[in-house]
Amino acid sequence: MKSAVVLLSGGLDSTTLLHHVIKNLGYEKVYALSVFYGQKHDKELQMAQWQCDQLNEVKQLDLFELPSFANLIEGASALTAGGQEVPDLDSLGDSERTQPPTYVPNRNMMMLSIAAAYAEAKFCKEIFYGAQAQDEYGYWDCTTDFITHINQVLSLNRKNEIEIVAPFVNMKKSEELAIGIKLGVNYAKTWTCYRGGEKACGVCPTCVERLTAFKELNQIDPLDYE
Amino acid sequence: MKSAVVLLSGGLDSTTLLHHVIKNLGYEKVYALSVFYGQKHDKELQMAQWQCDQLNEVKQLDLFELPSFANLIEGASALTAGGQEVPDLDSLGDSERTQPPTYVPNRNMMMLSIAAAYAEAKFCKEIFYGAQAQDEYGYWDCTTDFITHINQVLSLNRKNEIEIVAPFVNMKKSEELAIGIKLGVNYAKTWTCYRGGEKACGVCPTCVERLTAFKELNQIDPLDYE
Repeated sequence: MKSAVVLLSGGLDSTTLLHHVIKNLGYEKVYALSVFYGQKHDKELQMAQWQCDQLNEVKQLDLFELPSFANLIEGASALTAGGQEVPDLDSLGDSERTQPPTYVPNRNMMMLSIAAAYAEAKFCKEIFYGAQAQDEYGYWDCTTDFITHINQVLSLNRKNEIEIVAPFVNMKKSEELAIGIKLGVNYAKTWTCYRGGEKACGVCPTCVERLTAFKELNQIDPLDYE
Repeated sequence: MKSAVVLLSGGLDSTTLLHHVIKNLGYEKVYALSVFYGQKHDKELQMAQWQCDQLNEVKQLDLFELPSFANLIEGASALTAGGQEVPDLDSLGDSERTQPPTYVPNRNMMMLSIAAAYAEAKFCKEIFYGAQAQDEYGYWDCTTDFITHINQVLSLNRKNEIEIVAPFVNMKKSEELAIGIKLGVNYAKTWTCYRGGEKACGVCPTCVERLTAFKELNQIDPLDYE
């Protein structure tokens, strides 16, 4: 039985990935892992649970909590408690686009490390990771280089060789979204906005990116926006 | 002012490292980080605090807790809650010596990832890591290869380049111990034993290794043994 760990935030990328892994890649046993690292809101995590409840192949959703992470990094990110306000995409200068205020120090390596420990315990060889190459701004820990080098580290394990697989890393957001739409993913049950308001804001970097992807496909985003 | 993060467990290696970083390498501002990942006992952590209290250069000791890690890996290690008994070194077969039951799935990569996030927040460029090449048995995540590859990952960061430095990785334990003895480290206030008894057991893999190092230097280990 093909089994894997899927890192699931409840956002558009990782939710599409979860459905892709099960329905297109044929994984029959999926361990979903959500990490709570002190985000300002947990709207995504509620969506992650909803998505997992729809899929029999998901054996469990583990919520891994890092209760003191936001405190450890002392407001170094706009996404975590104590950090600055989330900026609009429009307000980002060129130099900020390579490492925006919404970057969370080394978060992705940390989450992948935890996922790799989980995969060892569950005897899974693959960890699926929803990294996607942003068009307008970006993070070093969502790149092909990053994944290649992390896999070089993991390949040193003497007993359990584990690989990070990121099927969307070289896709445009709209290509990825097209996959999810074809699979019938309910995008009203995904949360992307960096701000945790009643409705999505529509102007933060990740909202703009999401809306652009729907627009490129001539689709309507079913999520409510302000 | 030279500043750095030091991963400090309170064991012999990382305690020697802490003193080495301050007294031999001249770091004036040290952020010590201890990680509690569900170990069966926390005797080491008490020692870590004692050591930090002696050194003015240590600005703070952060204890980072991963309350659900032992549960996530479901007893996959003899060191964490729910895992098998810690074996004696004598009982380890050849094949077990490359990845012993005391291996904790991907623990070191996870701890270094957390340390790298901390270093970014504290604007430190170096993380000191007490990895040491064991003589009798070993772990893939205490090797030069591991450190080289982790550093390749970290070098991709677009803003804060951080490096893991492991001064003892190619030393014998006794060479490392000689450095600490010269610096006057109080080894009665370090804890090595994998078992958390009143006294150290003297027969688990890491006790044997420690005792051998003292013996090679014709020194008496000041710790109480059963």
